[in-house]
Amino acid sequence: MTKTVHFLPDDVKVTVEEGENLLNVAANAGVYIHAFCGGEGVCGKCKVKIEQGEVAATQATKLKSAEIEQGFRLACQSKVITDLVVQIPETIRKDGKKLKRKPKTTRAISARSLDDLIGGWDVEPLVEKRFFSLSRPTIEDNVSDLQRLTRAISKGCPECKAPSYDHPELLQELPFVMRKANWEVTSILLRGKRVEEPDRIIAVEPGDTTSAFYGLALDIGTTTVCGVLIDLNSGKVIAEASEYNGQIQYGEDVISRIIYSQRPGGLEALQQKVVHTINNVIETVCNKVSIVHENISYIMAAGNTAMSHLLLGLNPKFIREAPYTPTCNQYPITKAADIGISAHPSVRLFLYPSVASYVGGDITSGVHACQMHKSPELTLFIDIGTNGEIVIGNQEWMVCAACSAGPAFEGGGIKHGMRAASGAIENFHIEPVTLNPMIITINLVKPQGICGSGLISIVAELLEAGVIDQQGKFNRNLDHPRIREGYDGYEYVLAWAKDSALDEDIVITEVDLDNLMRAKGAMYAGYQTLLESVSMNFTDLDRVILAGNFGNYIDLEQAICIGLLPDIERDKFYYLGNASLLGAQISIIDHKRFLERTVVSRLMTNMELSENPNFMNHYMGSLFLPHTDMSLFPTVQKKLPQKP
Amino acid sequence: MTKTVHFLPDDVKVTVEEGENLLNVAANAGVYIHAFCGGEGVCGKCKVKIEQGEVAATQATKLKSAEIEQGFRLACQSKVITDLVVQIPETIRKDGKKLKRKPKTTRAISARSLDDLIGGWDVEPLVEKRFFSLSRPTIEDNVSDLQRLTRAISKGCPECKAPSYDHPELLQELPFVMRKANWEVTSILLRGKRVEEPDRIIAVEPGDTTSAFYGLALDIGTTTVCGVLIDLNSGKVIAEASEYNGQIQYGEDVISRIIYSQRPGGLEALQQKVVHTINNVIETVCNKVSIVHENISYIMAAGNTAMSHLLLGLNPKFIREAPYTPTCNQYPITKAADIGISAHPSVRLFLYPSVASYVGGDITSGVHACQMHKSPELTLFIDIGTNGEIVIGNQEWMVCAACSAGPAFEGGGIKHGMRAASGAIENFHIEPVTLNPMIITINLVKPQGICGSGLISIVAELLEAGVIDQQGKFNRNLDHPRIREGYDGYEYVLAWAKDSALDEDIVITEVDLDNLMRAKGAMYAGYQTLLESVSMNFTDLDRVILAGNFGNYIDLEQAICIGLLPDIERDKFYYLGNASLLGAQISIIDHKRFLERTVVSRLMTNMELSENPNFMNHYMGSLFLPHTDMSLFPTVQKKLPQKP
Repeated sequence: MTKTVHFLPDDVKVTVEEGENLLNVAANAGVYIHAFCGGEGVCGKCKVKIEQGEVAATQATKLKSAEIEQGFRLACQSKVITDLVVQIPETIRKDGKKLKRKPKTTRAISARSLDDLIGGWDVEPLVEKRFFSLSRPTIEDNVSDLQRLTRAISKGCPECKAPSYDHPELLQELPFVMRKANWEVTSILLRGKRVEEPDRIIAVEPGDTTSAFYGLALDIGTTTVCGVLIDLNSGKVIAEASEYNGQIQYGEDVISRIIYSQRPGGLEALQQKVVHTINNVIETVCNKVSIVHENISYIMAAGNTAMSHLLLGLNPKFIREAPYTPTCNQYPITKAADIGISAHPSVRLFLYPSVASYVGGDITSGVHACQMHKSPELTLFIDIGTNGEIVIGNQEWMVCAACSAGPAFEGGGIKHGMRAASGAIENFHIEPVTLNPMIITINLVKPQGICGSGLISIVAELLEAGVIDQQGKFNRNLDHPRIREGYDGYEYVLAWAKDSALDEDIVITEVDLDNLMRAKGAMYAGYQTLLESVSMNFTDLDRVILAGNFGNYIDLEQAICIGLLPDIERDKFYYLGNASLLGAQISIIDHKRFLERTVVSRLMTNMELSENPNFMNHYMGSLFLPHTDMSLFPTVQKKLPQKP
Repeated sequence: MTKTVHFLPDDVKVTVEEGENLLNVAANAGVYIHAFCGGEGVCGKCKVKIEQGEVAATQATKLKSAEIEQGFRLACQSKVITDLVVQIPETIRKDGKKLKRKPKTTRAISARSLDDLIGGWDVEPLVEKRFFSLSRPTIEDNVSDLQRLTRAISKGCPECKAPSYDHPELLQELPFVMRKANWEVTSILLRGKRVEEPDRIIAVEPGDTTSAFYGLALDIGTTTVCGVLIDLNSGKVIAEASEYNGQIQYGEDVISRIIYSQRPGGLEALQQKVVHTINNVIETVCNKVSIVHENISYIMAAGNTAMSHLLLGLNPKFIREAPYTPTCNQYPITKAADIGISAHPSVRLFLYPSVASYVGGDITSGVHACQMHKSPELTLFIDIGTNGEIVIGNQEWMVCAACSAGPAFEGGGIKHGMRAASGAIENFHIEPVTLNPMIITINLVKPQGICGSGLISIVAELLEAGVIDQQGKFNRNLDHPRIREGYDGYEYVLAWAKDSALDEDIVITEVDLDNLMRAKGAMYAGYQTLLESVSMNFTDLDRVILAGNFGNYIDLEQAICIGLLPDIERDKFYYLGNASLLGAQISIIDHKRFLERTVVSRLMTNMELSENPNFMNHYMGSLFLPHTDMSLFPTVQKKLPQKP
C-alpha cells in the first residue's frame, strides 16, 4: 500500500510505502529536517507537525504532552500509516522561505527497465531431474543397474546419449537405491551440451523427488558472501541470505588476505573460512524454506579473482606481484563437497571466469547479467569499492580495468569511517542557512561513524553549502561551532559526543576529504583512460550501470557532485545492485546464459592502469571537487556557490 | 641359438633353443622317457644315452661312473648345449620297436600369425607430453599462468582447443612449477577426442620430461594381477610383473570374494587388498627400469566384472544373485590415486567395460585384442577357468556366455589338485606298454600335486592308453601296481610317496575324473549352445582362439582328446596368452583402439546359460570322454583303444 506524504512549507509531495520511516522519507525527498542523533530519537531535533493524517509514533520522550496534542511528532520515530500533510516547523521559523527543492536523486530501476537491461531467460537449468519407473530385472533382461537407468533415460530423453555415471562413490549406492525404492527413482542429469562436459548422471534418488530441485547462486565478496536459493522448477528465488566473509578476521581487503595466505597454513585457513561462511549461507537459505542441503543440485558462484583463488585453494601470491598474473582465469569445475562445502557429493561448483587479477568473476558475472556484450548501446559498467572495476563497451568490444581507489568507500582511511553497518551515517543533508546537519544512520540508531555512501553524501552537501571548497578545504571564513580546527586540521562535527554512540564527536576532516578525492579521482581517471583508449568520450555513453550493493546506496546527484560519476544525462544511469549475484542466478536458471559466461570473459580486454601514464595524468586532474576541468561537470558548475 | 635334438630309436628330430631341459624337450616332442620324480633328479628313471654331442649335466648322483663314461645322463638334469643324438635305452630294452610318433601338439603362435590376429596399431596414446619454452609474463602480457600454457599448447597443437585444467589440486602447483622451471615446462595432455572427455591438461612438469612417458596396462585376475609398463614414446613393453591378487586370502574364487564382500568392512578390505597388489606390481615394474611411479601417465586395466567392481569399491552383491545384474558394465573413469593406487593424482584409471556379470572386461579386452569384432572369420574365443567364458562371432555379431565350469582347472575339487605353482605336475605321458608315467613338474622339482594343464594331460593319456574308459572309470582288468582301489575308489598313482614332495602317493581318482568331466563338459556344452543359438556348428568355425594364461599351457591334442576343445582342423587354433592384458596394452598405445572398447562390449550379446534347457541337454551329453556323440570327435575316435 502506498501513501502520499506532503511536506510543508517546501510543498514537496512524495509517494511512499506504508510503514516507511518519516525521517527517511524526508531525506529521500530532499526535505531538510534537523536530525543530529542519526534517528535514535534522543536529540529531539526532528520535530515535525502532522497537519493531516496519522503516524505510528514509537517513542516521544523528547516531546511535551502539549506538543503531542498539537500534533508534533519526532520524524525519526514515526512510521507513515496514512496519507500525510507534514509541516516542518524549524524551517518555517528560520525565514519562512521555501527551500529549493532538491531533485529526487535515486533513480530506482523499475521492473520494466531491469528486464530491458538483463533480457529474458528460460527455466532450463544445466541439470535436469527426471523420474523413472523402471522395469524389474529378469533373467531375460539382466542388464546392469546403470544400463537399466540409462536405457530409461535414453527413452525419456532421446537427445541424452547414453549418459555415463558420475563417479564410483555414487555408483556404490545405485543398486541399493533402486531396489529399496522398488525401481522408482529420480535421476539428476548434468546435460553435457549445457556444461561442456559429457552427459552424466550425477545422482539418483529414491522415489519421485522432481519437485525438490534447487540451485544456489553465490556472490563471494571480499566483505560479504550472498546467496540465493532458486527453485529450479519455477526459476524463482525462494530464499536469500548473506553473511560477512569469515576471512575478514585475517584482513579487510584483498591485499591483506593475499599477504595472510602466504603465512604457513594461511591459504588453508582462508579457504576454510570462506567455505564455513558459504556453509552458513547454505544452512540459512535451506532453513528458510525447510529443505536440506542435499536438495541443492548445483552451485554457481562469482567472486573476484583473489576470492575465487582462495575458495579453490589456489595460491594468490602472484596476483599481488607485478606483472599481476593469476593462476587461472577459467576455473576448473569442482565438486563442491571436495572443498568442504555442505553439498551432496555430486554437486558441482561453477565459478564465473575472471578476466585478470583485478577484474574478477564478479565483474564478468555482472557484465553478463546486464547483457552489455549483446547490446549495441555503449555502456559504462562500474563497480565501486576498494578496487573499483570499470568496463566500457558493447556487443562488439569491451575494455575493462581496475582502479585502486583505496578503502575510503569502505570506511578505510577515514577518521570515523566504518563499514555499512548499524549506526553508520548513510544519508546526510545540511541546512544551507544554519549549516546544521540532518544525519540518518543505518537502523536509525545513534551514529557510530560514516560509511561510503554517507561519505559521498556529506562531501557533496558540504561542497554545495560552501562549507568546503573545490580543493576539499574548509572555508576558514565561516564561524560555526561545528566547523573547527581539530587534531587532524580543519573538520566539521557531524554529531556531538552526546548525540553519538561514541564518547567523542564524530567529525569529517580535511584528511578524510583528501582520501575521498583520491578514491573518486581514481575511478574517474579510470573512466577517462578507458574511453580515451577507444577514442571516445563521456557524451558517447548510452548507459552507465552501477553494480554492487554499494552502488545501490549511492545518491546519484551527490556522486556526480563530487566527481565520482560523470555528469551526463541522469536517465542514462541504472542501478543494478548485486550484479555478480544476479549473473550467477540467471546462469543457474538458464543453461544458454550459462554457456555465454566464457564468451563474456573473453570479450573483455583488460588494461593495466597502475603504470599507465595517461591514467596518472587523468588522476591528477581528478583530485578536485568535482574536477579541475569543470567543463566536464556542467550541472555541478551551476549549483556550486560562485567563487567570490 | 637353436639346436637339433635327434631322439632314437623313435627317430624324432626337433629344433629347440639352446639351454632347454632335455626332459622337457622329449616330452614336448612326444618322446616317452620314464620320469617319476617330476624332474628333480632323484628317481633316476630318465636315463638317456648321448650318442652325439654334449649336454650340460648339473647332477648325476643316480648314475654310476661307468654309465657316465658310456654317455648316459639323466634327461631331467641335462641342458641342450650342442646338436644332439639321444638314445632312449629303456624303450629299446622293452621290445625294440619304434613307438608311434605323437603329433607335435602345441601350436605356438608365431610372431607373424599374432600380428595377423591382433592387427597393427600406432603409437598414439590417449595422452600426450609436450615441452614448451614459454614467454615470461610482462605488464603488457600478464595473462594467467594457465592461459600462458594453453596459448602455447594451442600454438603447438592447433587441434587442441583451449584445453582446461584438470583439477584445483594440480593448479595449486602450476604457478610455482612454471617459475621454478624458468618457464620451461612439459604438459601432459589428455586428448578429449581420444577419451570422450574435454581436452584437459592433467599435469605440468618442470623442464623437458617428454622422454619419461609411460603407461601401465593391468590384467586384474581373480588369482593373479599382471602388469606391463609401456614406454609411450616407443610403444614398447619395457617391464612386466605379476603377483597373486592379495584378495586370495579372503577366498579363491569370485563367488567366495563376493560372499566376503558382504561382511562388515569386507568390501573395503577386498578393495584395499587388490589395490595393494597393484601397487606392488607398479613398484616392481618401476624398479626394473628405474623410474618412479609418478612417471606413469595413465593406467588401463581389464578384469572380470566382480574384480572390476571390487577395485572401484562397487558392491558386487547382485552379481551373485539371480538375475545376476552388475551395478554397471561401463565403468566410470576414475583417478587412480582416489582409490589408493600409487599414482600421480592426475592419472586416470580406465577399466575395460564388461558385458554382463560373468562376462567381464577381461573378455572384452581379449576379444578386442584379437579384433574378432573386425574380422569376417567366424571365431570361437575361449577363456578357460573356474568361470569359462566363450564368445562366438565375427565383425557382424557376437554372442557370449559364461560357463560355470567349477574349479577343476584351477586345482579345485581334485584330490591332489593345486594351482599352477612350483611342483605342480604340468605335463604327463604314459608308457603305453609298461603304463609307467613320465611326469614333469613346474620348475622340475618333486611333485606336489596336479595343476589344470597337468590334469588334462593325465586324463588324455590315461584315456588313450586304455587305463580309463570313456566314462572316466578305471579299467578294472588291468593288473598294475599304480592302478588300485583307494579311499575314493579306483585311482592311478602318479608318483609314489618316495618320489613326491608329500608324505603320500600322489594319485588321480575317479572322483577327480568326474569333476574334470563336469568342467570340460560345461565348456563344450557352452560352445554348442552358443553355436546353436546362431544356427551354426563347429564346422563353420574359421578360428578358435584360446585366451588366458591357462590356455597357453594346454596341449591341444590332449584337450581335444578329453573333449574340452572341439575336434576340428588343428591349424584353426591360436594361443593368444593373456589376451586381457594384451587388449589393455594395445589400447594404451593407440587411442584409436582405445575408442573401440565400448563398441566391442556393446557388440557382444550375453546369453545366460545357467537356466537354459538346451545348455543342460548339451551338458549331459558332454559328461563323457570326449563326448557321447563320437561323430563330433573323429580324430579322437580313431586313436582311442577300440572297445572289445
